[in-house]
Amino acid sequence: MAAALALAERTRGRTAPNPNVGCIIVDVHGRVAGRGWTQPGGRPHAEAAALAQAGARARGATAYVTLEPCAHVSPRGPACSDLLVAAGVARVVVALRDPDPRTDGQGMARLRAAGIDVATGVGDDAARRGMAGFLTRRRAARPLVTLKLALSLDGAAAMADGRSQWISGPEARAHAHLERSRHEAILVGRGTWEADRPRLDVRLPGLEARSPVRVVLSSRRDGMPGDVVRIAAPHAIATLPGDHVLIEGGMATAAAFLRAGLVDRLLLYRAPIVIGGGRTLADIGLADLGQAHGRWRLHDARQLGSDRIEVYGAG
Amino acid sequence: MAAALALAERTRGRTAPNPNVGCIIVDVHGRVAGRGWTQPGGRPHAEAAALAQAGARARGATAYVTLEPCAHVSPRGPACSDLLVAAGVARVVVALRDPDPRTDGQGMARLRAAGIDVATGVGDDAARRGMAGFLTRRRAARPLVTLKLALSLDGAAAMADGRSQWISGPEARAHAHLERSRHEAILVGRGTWEADRPRLDVRLPGLEARSPVRVVLSSRRDGMPGDVVRIAAPHAIATLPGDHVLIEGGMATAAAFLRAGLVDRLLLYRAPIVIGGGRTLADIGLADLGQAHGRWRLHDARQLGSDRIEVYGAG
Repeated sequence: MAAALALAERTRGRTAPNPNVGCIIVDVHGRVAGRGWTQPGGRPHAEAAALAQAGARARGATAYVTLEPCAHVSPRGPACSDLLVAAGVARVVVALRDPDPRTDGQGMARLRAAGIDVATGVGDDAARRGMAGFLTRRRAARPLVTLKLALSLDGAAAMADGRSQWISGPEARAHAHLERSRHEAILVGRGTWEADRPRLDVRLPGLEARSPVRVVLSSRRDGMPGDVVRIAAPHAIATLPGDHVLIEGGMATAAAFLRAGLVDRLLLYRAPIVIGGGRTLADIGLADLGQAHGRWRLHDARQLGSDRIEVYGAG
Repeated sequence: MAAALALAERTRGRTAPNPNVGCIIVDVHGRVAGRGWTQPGGRPHAEAAALAQAGARARGATAYVTLEPCAHVSPRGPACSDLLVAAGVARVVVALRDPDPRTDGQGMARLRAAGIDVATGVGDDAARRGMAGFLTRRRAARPLVTLKLALSLDGAAAMADGRSQWISGPEARAHAHLERSRHEAILVGRGTWEADRPRLDVRLPGLEARSPVRVVLSSRRDGMPGDVVRIAAPHAIATLPGDHVLIEGGMATAAAFLRAGLVDRLLLYRAPIVIGGGRTLADIGLADLGQAHGRWRLHDARQLGSDRIEVYGAG
């Protein structure tokens, strides 16, 4: 399942409105016969790709899928649960049940009805994180919101006069560009837009084409290029295309989203420097410290050159 | 040497004006025959304690010492280099040369003159950190200054109205009390003093007696108890007793010491909470971001409950 989850990561941010799913088929001899992941745009599905690769070796095999195989036939392809039945798979291991009402248990029911052994819940926490964009759109009718902050040890994103080049080192900055490529939209506030006119694109060799839609939080449109999307308030992110929005600044915009309870994931790059008197996070409407605890939990942390990246998710 | 360095930690903050040294004696059979560390107040020295424990087993043994054995006889005891010669030790491994002009190489010279094999530089980085208080007093004629900050992810030490109970969890707070016990003096600014009247003592079972001297940075003395020491400016820490000062707040005082270039060590407790609009570090006179880099290096990091402690030292 860990391998299937890794495959699912390949198209995170590029399969909306479909989830990014991974699938591994292990044949009767215990060998990997097929590997698949949802393709950009959402089709083919991971199972269809993995089954195509496995061919006749799928007979009697075990399929590991990060999301329940779909039960609905669409003009774009047959239902994956039917494909698995037709291929003669003996066992299907599912990380997460699909909340889409067209499936929602019916995929697994169809597999079981065909005599296939079905296990579920394997790696479900990791699957929930990997498909958080899809799940948030289903649950809350809006994209998953990641707030990216590149901070000094004292929490400054810039010096008092706005200078912020550079707080993070080159490794952290490259990682931030990789994160951009996994989001359909990047958002900045009006202040950052006017001060920096940021390109907000993906500057990594081979990934230039994956640059997301640029979004500015602003009450007025004047002076923005035609390809820039404007939203007037944080909750308007619901109207954005795709299932992943990355908020890149500034601190007032970050605070506005936190205040609105619209941040699902914190992506912190921490540089081992002290700035002092710099630009720190604005008021987020916190009533007391007790309220602040338990809200965020560390999901991942790594050293990137001299910086440290920390990813926090909802408690 | 690692074991000797660990022994040296036992009396860090309690041996001034002497260094906190550790010593291990390994006999001809490779067994530990003696363990010693500088006692509170500075005497007996680590070597004297370890040799007393080893007795006749010191003959032909190897002594591991974190600092060069002293070459000077004092009314309080004989020179450790003479003691090692007299005990018939065959080999002495030294982490760091003693900068005290009364020794400064003469301890090792005396050992070599007696036919003892002397190695040096083993574990010197760790020894330099462990005896940083002693070395800073020697080098800069002032105590080592540790700035303690308990911060949220966004760098706030308190909410905007000053509330800070609690940002850190119980494990981190207990650790902060342990750190207090390793400092001869704790300093706060006038604002923190007036707002909180902090006890600044060590509230750990068995360590209550190790509470440091309380120091307040303030231009005037009014209303402070007699046991509180007042200093008018950061550089006046040179006059404080002991080799270790811990700065505990608030943010203006922290900034004053950083601005004066008088912080040697950062002790950060980071809680996984976001405050927003809280009290962050004041201006430290930074001219540009380039200047901020390379100043601090991570020496140690650990998880303490839900918090993370990070110790930074000079680059």
